[in-house]
Amino acid sequence: MITAFVLIRAKGDRIAALGELIAELPQVAEVYSVTGPFDLVALLRLKDIEELDEVVTQGILGLPGVERTETLLAFRAYPRKLLDQGFSLGEG
Amino acid sequence: MITAFVLIRAKGDRIAALGELIAELPQVAEVYSVTGPFDLVALLRLKDIEELDEVVTQGILGLPGVERTETLLAFRAYPRKLLDQGFSLGEG
Amino acid sequence: MITAFVLIRAKGDRIAALGELIAELPQVAEVYSVTGPFDLVALLRLKDIEELDEVVTQGILGLPGVERTETLLAFRAYPRKLLDQGFSLGEG
Amino acid sequence: MITAFVLIRAKGDRIAALGELIAELPQVAEVYSVTGPFDLVALLRLKDIEELDEVVTQGILGLPGVERTETLLAFRAYPRKLLDQGFSLGEG
Amino acid sequence: MITAFVLIRAKGDRIAALGELIAELPQVAEVYSVTGPFDLVALLRLKDIEELDEVVTQGILGLPGVERTETLLAFRAYPRKLLDQGFSLGEG
Amino acid sequence: MITAFVLIRAKGDRIAALGELIAELPQVAEVYSVTGPFDLVALLRLKDIEELDEVVTQGILGLPGVERTETLLAFRAYPRKLLDQGFSLGEG
Amino acid sequence: MITAFVLIRAKGDRIAALGELIAELPQVAEVYSVTGPFDLVALLRLKDIEELDEVVTQGILGLPGVERTETLLAFRAYPRKLLDQGFSLGEG
Amino acid sequence: MITAFVLIRAKGDRIAALGELIAELPQVAEVYSVTGPFDLVALLRLKDIEELDEVVTQGILGLPGVERTETLLAFRAYPRKLLDQGFSLGEG
Amino acid sequence: MITAFVLIRAKGDRIAALGELIAELPQVAEVYSVTGPFDLVALLRLKDIEELDEVVTQGILGLPGVERTETLLAFRAYPRKLLDQGFSLGEG
Amino acid sequence: MITAFVLIRAKGDRIAALGELIAELPQVAEVYSVTGPFDLVALLRLKDIEELDEVVTQGILGLPGVERTETLLAFRAYPRKLLDQGFSLGEG
Repeated sequence: MITAFVLIRAKGDRIAALGELIAELPQVAEVYSVTGPFDLVALLRLKDIEELDEVVTQGILGLPGVERTETLLAFRAYPRKLLDQGFSLGEG
Repeated sequence: MITAFVLIRAKGDRIAALGELIAELPQVAEVYSVTGPFDLVALLRLKDIEELDEVVTQGILGLPGVERTETLLAFRAYPRKLLDQGFSLGEG
Repeated sequence: MITAFVLIRAKGDRIAALGELIAELPQVAEVYSVTGPFDLVALLRLKDIEELDEVVTQGILGLPGVERTETLLAFRAYPRKLLDQGFSLGEG
Repeated sequence: MITAFVLIRAKGDRIAALGELIAELPQVAEVYSVTGPFDLVALLRLKDIEELDEVVTQGILGLPGVERTETLLAFRAYPRKLLDQGFSLGEG
Repeated sequence: MITAFVLIRAKGDRIAALGELIAELPQVAEVYSVTGPFDLVALLRLKDIEELDEVVTQGILGLPGVERTETLLAFRAYPRKLLDQGFSLGEG
Repeated sequence: MITAFVLIRAKGDRIAALGELIAELPQVAEVYSVTGPFDLVALLRLKDIEELDEVVTQGILGLPGVERTETLLAFRAYPRKLLDQGFSLGEG
Repeated sequence: MITAFVLIRAKGDRIAALGELIAELPQVAEVYSVTGPFDLVALLRLKDIEELDEVVTQGILGLPGVERTETLLAFRAYPRKLLDQGFSLGEG
Repeated sequence: MITAFVLIRAKGDRIAALGELIAELPQVAEVYSVTGPFDLVALLRLKDIEELDEVVTQGILGLPGVERTETLLAFRAYPRKLLDQGFSLGEG
Repeated sequence: MITAFVLIRAKGDRIAALGELIAELPQVAEVYSVTGPFDLVALLRLKDIEELDEVVTQGILGLPGVERTETLLAFRAYPRKLLDQGFSLGEG
Repeated sequence: MITAFVLIRAKGDRIAALGELIAELPQVAEVYSVTGPFDLVALLRLKDIEELDEVVTQGILGLPGVERTETLLAFRAYPRKLLDQGFSLGEG
């Protein structure tokens, strides 16, 4: 499973509606309004990187009010060693 | 529980070691090497925003090789309505 | 109580009207026209971070003429130790 | 009385110590660690703009670990009209 | 007397007309077309900082074709010590 | 006579000393500490643009603590038409 | 043969259609949707740099939905020395 | 004679037409489509800096499709000492 | 097979040596000195995204003189439809 | 013949010396100190783009005090049609 973070800048009066729409996309595990230069962050769990086309290019970018996205694709996870994290946010 | 994303820029030869150190911080649920303008992203789960001082100011920023961090603090979650997500990435 | 600073960029001919509207939002303690790259700064006093959604996403960002906001959320206050500052926050 | 916001970027391992030092400057009413591209925000209350030289140029900028500051000087306050705000600037 | 520099970015076909309009504002001592990332620079002489609201927010920013302004407010003058500069500010 | 504005970014602990040194350069009519992304602004009055080499490249840029300068060269002045401005450039 | 990389920013709802159109340009060897601040990257193989005018200025920039392009033109290739790369991506 | 470089960003479908129009301005010695963040570069030869107003503010900036210009004005030439360059500025 | 473009900024006196070293990394198909804000571009062909850790984090970023990299990961290829491109730049 | 513009940012106390050194490179037709965000501009006349490696990577970037360069490579010239420009490129 591949993790990606999509940082989203949107029109001010569309943020709440976009958050609700993006939450319904099947690859979106979590989506939040955030402080800072972006308005929303979506956390994706993908089977393969080709799914980015479905969720970002054809999913998020096609929604009215989305101005820009920047996708940070995780290519290496650093698991916790000292503590068992099997229950915390397993990748399985 | 409060979610935050810490975007981290680090010295090139310190990224892997930093990923392993950051993974051990108790508020860090996940940490990844990512594509794009930042080198690492840490996903935090916090009891309150005062914990940012412990994990970011005194934790991550004190590690050798960290050049800058930018914290995106989630202030509203958009839960999935149509599908039950109780199992997907529970906040509990 | 949580403090946040909202930096606001607005259309030039809307700044004065926006300042007056933002001053009426209940979480806004002070709002000013400022020099520099932003046009207005609002100082917020919040009960919890969820109130950011009400005041920023649904309050400020919905006002006509607001182009962008950037929210700086305080997560640690540094109180004055040497001098009593009990009186020092008043506007005089 | 003139209000100004000083946005401060600092070396990661100096932020907490700087917050405590800046809090002791007499024109600094409040100072916080904040999320976003800056590390600290200081809220100033000044008798006149010449005091900026004392507090910023000779005060904050001379402290070890300060990398950059950007000062937003308020030149117009928008008072609340509908509600009495006489009590609203306290930290409660 | 307070000095301020207003850096102005404007629509290309409006620069000359804007220069002429801004020159008529009473607090504007000089205004120029300039090289570099801004199009016009206005040199202001103000009685107090509240006048910035009149000349910038309500004056310059309300003119058609102004895209952005950035105001640099002088808070300390460095007078020449070795030479008498009493005559040096004239335009010759 | 040619007017130019030199925006100067300097090391924090050198700003006051630099202001005093720059004030002594013969082409510098005024120099100020300013709010915003630059630390100092120098107002130049030049006989010809070749003097920029003397005052900027060999003068200001050679002073210890200067990090960057950006020169905005005026190529058109917009004189006031309605009011006589013969007296308006003085510092009063 | 000259190699160039064209980084393309496009309207969100036009990316997929643009990728397909750009793929048909004769100098475009490969084109991809990519993560990061740009949306598409086109890899060009050119006979001479004048062909950039045909493929970029008149080709890509004329397509509806293209917002900006930035062209990185290769002026020196570093061939692999240790391994025979005759088959890998020959320049011929 | 004064040399200046005007860096021009333009609408994608107007670049070729703009290049042809700008080439006809009498102070424009050369104009090119270029790689990088700007679309066109014009090389100017001016009698005095006041001509910038004619060629840039009233000439280039008034042409439809020009989005921004940035003018780099040469204030010191470094002539070649070792070799005679009397012939070297021609286009050959 | 996954394609990625690594944009590399390097110290000026190390660019040529870095180009030769990067060319030897097994996942690097091509590497070039380029015009524009980056110094080198490496074209990668990867078996999976985890290889980015080997080639970028541990490979390129560990080389002396590399200042920053930005990786653009391709997640969708747009194949040419009208013409057979089997011979042009085969991925095999 | 290929034309390129190299924009150079340099250490303040090295600009004049660098201008003199760069003027001696055989592909450099002209070099100037300029106003704006860059310090020097070199105008190159090249036989082919491979010469950029010699003049920029190994020439300019190897000189002490050069901090960054950005090369704008001309790929289309727009010749003047209405007037004969055979004489117009000389320095007079």
